[in-house]
Amino acid sequence: MAARWIDPERIESAIAALAGHGAHGETGVARLVYSPEWVAAQDQVAAWMAEAGLRVERDAVGNIWAYLDGRDREAAMVVTGSHVDSQNPGGRFDGALGVIAGIMALSELRERFGQPERTLAAVSLVEEEASRFPTANFWGSRAIIGRIAAEEPKRLRGYDGVTMAEAMRDAGLDAARIPEAKREDIGTFVELHIEQGPFLERENFPVGVVEAITGYRQYLVTLEGAANHAGTTPMDMRRDPMAGAAEIIGGVVDTAHRMGRPCVTTVGRVNVSPNERAVIPRQVAFTVDARSPLPEQRETLLARHEALIQEVAERRDLRLSLRVDSDRGPVRCDPETVAVIAAAAEAAGVPAMTMTSGAVHDAMQMAEIARIAMIFVRSRSGISHSPDEFTAAEDAAAGIEVLARALHTLAYRP
Amino acid sequence: MAARWIDPERIESAIAALAGHGAHGETGVARLVYSPEWVAAQDQVAAWMAEAGLRVERDAVGNIWAYLDGRDREAAMVVTGSHVDSQNPGGRFDGALGVIAGIMALSELRERFGQPERTLAAVSLVEEEASRFPTANFWGSRAIIGRIAAEEPKRLRGYDGVTMAEAMRDAGLDAARIPEAKREDIGTFVELHIEQGPFLERENFPVGVVEAITGYRQYLVTLEGAANHAGTTPMDMRRDPMAGAAEIIGGVVDTAHRMGRPCVTTVGRVNVSPNERAVIPRQVAFTVDARSPLPEQRETLLARHEALIQEVAERRDLRLSLRVDSDRGPVRCDPETVAVIAAAAEAAGVPAMTMTSGAVHDAMQMAEIARIAMIFVRSRSGISHSPDEFTAAEDAAAGIEVLARALHTLAYRP
Repeated sequence: MAARWIDPERIESAIAALAGHGAHGETGVARLVYSPEWVAAQDQVAAWMAEAGLRVERDAVGNIWAYLDGRDREAAMVVTGSHVDSQNPGGRFDGALGVIAGIMALSELRERFGQPERTLAAVSLVEEEASRFPTANFWGSRAIIGRIAAEEPKRLRGYDGVTMAEAMRDAGLDAARIPEAKREDIGTFVELHIEQGPFLERENFPVGVVEAITGYRQYLVTLEGAANHAGTTPMDMRRDPMAGAAEIIGGVVDTAHRMGRPCVTTVGRVNVSPNERAVIPRQVAFTVDARSPLPEQRETLLARHEALIQEVAERRDLRLSLRVDSDRGPVRCDPETVAVIAAAAEAAGVPAMTMTSGAVHDAMQMAEIARIAMIFVRSRSGISHSPDEFTAAEDAAAGIEVLARALHTLAYRP
Repeated sequence: MAARWIDPERIESAIAALAGHGAHGETGVARLVYSPEWVAAQDQVAAWMAEAGLRVERDAVGNIWAYLDGRDREAAMVVTGSHVDSQNPGGRFDGALGVIAGIMALSELRERFGQPERTLAAVSLVEEEASRFPTANFWGSRAIIGRIAAEEPKRLRGYDGVTMAEAMRDAGLDAARIPEAKREDIGTFVELHIEQGPFLERENFPVGVVEAITGYRQYLVTLEGAANHAGTTPMDMRRDPMAGAAEIIGGVVDTAHRMGRPCVTTVGRVNVSPNERAVIPRQVAFTVDARSPLPEQRETLLARHEALIQEVAERRDLRLSLRVDSDRGPVRCDPETVAVIAAAAEAAGVPAMTMTSGAVHDAMQMAEIARIAMIFVRSRSGISHSPDEFTAAEDAAAGIEVLARALHTLAYRP
C-alpha cells in the first residue's frame, strides 16, 4: 500500500487521547454533551486546531470552528467535521474520527498547499447522539441551520433532570444566544464517519462514498384489546393485543426483508400492560422504525406497513393508535461533490465503494443550507453505539487522505 | 323460579359485608393474605360460622374450619370452602362467594336435617391468589395437604418486602407450626366458585358442574440475538430476537386457536433488552401459558409449542433458553361426586351445564388427598380478577342450593 498523507499511528494516538475524556471501560466512551468530559474533549479539539495553525472560533451553541482562510473572502466555505459527543456508553470512533479527520486534513492541506482559494473550515459539532437529551439530536448542526425553536432550551430535559439551558450554562454558554450560531456562508459540507454497518467489511473496501442518506419514519403503535383471565377465556372470544402485535411485528419485518436492500424495518421497543404471565394483556405498545434511502421504496414500505397495521387492528377488533414520532425523507448527496470524492479516492489509490447511509448524520441537517457529501470508513463487524466499535487506523488514514484530496479539489481550484 | 333454600338478599348482604374489609373503589376489593383487612375478613367469617351454630377452629396456617359434627366420628369428612384473599385489586366474588356458600349451606343443612352421618366442614382458606407473595399460591390448601417446604416461610418475600414468616407473625401465627395444619381426615372436597369465564352466560345456565380442572404449563422463553443499529444492518444479516419472538408468539396463539376449545395459550408478559426504538434488540424474553383440561390435548399443545420454539430459534440463529416455571397435569373431578352434584341441581330445578375449569383452584391441591368436585356460578361477561367482576345473587342462591343438596347427599346418607 502507498504511504498515506497521514501516518496511521498519529490517528491512533489522537483517537486514544480523545477517548481519555469520558473513558468507559477499556475501549468505550461515555461523553454526553455539555458534561465536564465533553468540555475537556472540545478543549482538546480546540488545542489541536490551534497547533495546526488554524484560526479557532467557538460559536454560541458550543460548536468549535477552525478556519484555513481562503483568498476569496466572498466565496462560500468548504466545511468538514462531525461530533465528539457519544452514546452512553458508545465507542471511540463514532463522530470523533470525523472531527480528528477534519483537523488533520486541513493541517495537511495547509502544509502541502498553503492558502486555499475558498475558506476551509473544520468543525466539531455539539451534539448528535441525543444520549443526554432524548430529543436534542443534531443540536449543533440544527443551531447552524437555524432550526432550534426558541423554547427548546428550557423545555428539553435530560435523563439527568437538567434542562438544556442549564446544561449549556454549566458549560459556560448562554442559551439565549443560540440564534447567533446560525450561518449562511457554507457552500459544501463533507462529513467523514465510520460506516456503522457491515457493507464495507463484507465487500472488502476501506472507504465508502455515500450517495444518499436514508429517509425514515418512526411510529408508536398502540393496540388495545380486552384484558382477561388466561385460563378461562377461549381463543375464539379473545381481543388479544399481543396476538395483534405479534402479527404486525412479524409482518413489518417480513415486508422489509422481502422488499430487499436497502430498506430496513426494526421493532426495538415493546411495552405490555399489565405484563402479567396469566393475564391476556389490555394493551401492547411498540415502535416501528422504517428506513430507505430510495424515496419510492420508502413510500412503498411505509404504505405497506400502515396498511398492515390498520388491517390487523380492524380484523382483530383492537383499538389502534398510530402515532408518527419522526419522519424525514431521504437526502441525496450532491452528485458533483460525490464525483470529486470518488476521483480523490482514485487519485489516492484507495478502493472505494459507492453506497447509501442507513444511519442519520449531521450532514442530513446541513443539507438544508449546503451541498453535502459523506465519506465512510470501514467498521469492524458493522458494530457501533457500543464499546466494541472499532476502525483500523490504516482504514482511517485512507479515508482521511480521500477527505483531504477532495477538500483540496473543492477549495483550491480557482 | 322456585323459592331457593337461601334468600338471594342474604347472600347479597353477606358479600357486601365481606367486601367492606379491603374495599377498593365502588365494587373492588384489595385483601391480601395476612393483612389487617384480611384478618378482619377472616374474623367476620369466624363470627358467621359461630352464629350458624357450627364448631369453629383455626389451624396453624390461619385456615378457619367450621364443623357440623357427624354421628360417625371415624368417617372421612365432607368439606366445602374457598378463599377470602383477593387480587390486588380484584372483585368481591372470587373466593369469597365459596366461603359464604359453605357457611350458608351448612347452616341450612343443620336447620333442615340436624346432625349428619359424616362430619361436614366449611373452610375459609388462607391464600389462593399469590397477590401478596408471588409464588405463595394455594398457601392454605398446600398446608392442608402437607406441601409447604420447611424453608418457604422465610424464603418467600412479598411485593411489600415482608417475608411470609413475618406476615404470618403480624397476623398472630407462627410459621414454625405450619406442619400442624396437615390433615388426613378429608374424604370429599367440593368448592363453589364463580366461573370467571364466559361459557355459562353464553349458554344461559346459572350453574356449571365441573368435570375437570385444566392442566397447564408455563414457560419463560428467552431469545438472544445480536443487538445492532436499526439503520445500518440489512434485514438479511440480522439475528433479531424480536422477529423470532413475533413469529413464536403468533404461532403459539394460532396453534391453540386452531386446535380449538378447550385449550388456550396466552403470552401475557414480554421484556425487551435494551428496549430502544432504533436498536435491534439483543434479547427478548416472554412467557407462554398453555392450558387444557384434556390430558392428550395438553400434551399435543405443549409438543407443538416446544417444536415451534426450537425451530424458530434454530432457523433464525437465536440462542434459546426455554424454562418451565410450572407444570401441572389436568385434574379430573371425582365422577361419583360430579353425579351427586348434577342430581342435586336437577332436584333443585337449577339448569346446570357440565364444563371444565380453565382457571386453577384450591380444589386442585385438595385432589391430592381427597375426592374433589366444583360448582361454578355464572360470571357477568366472564370478567374476573377485576373490580368489574359480578355474579347475580339469584345465580349465587341457585349455586348454593345445589351445593347444599349435594352436601346433604354426601354427608347424610348412611
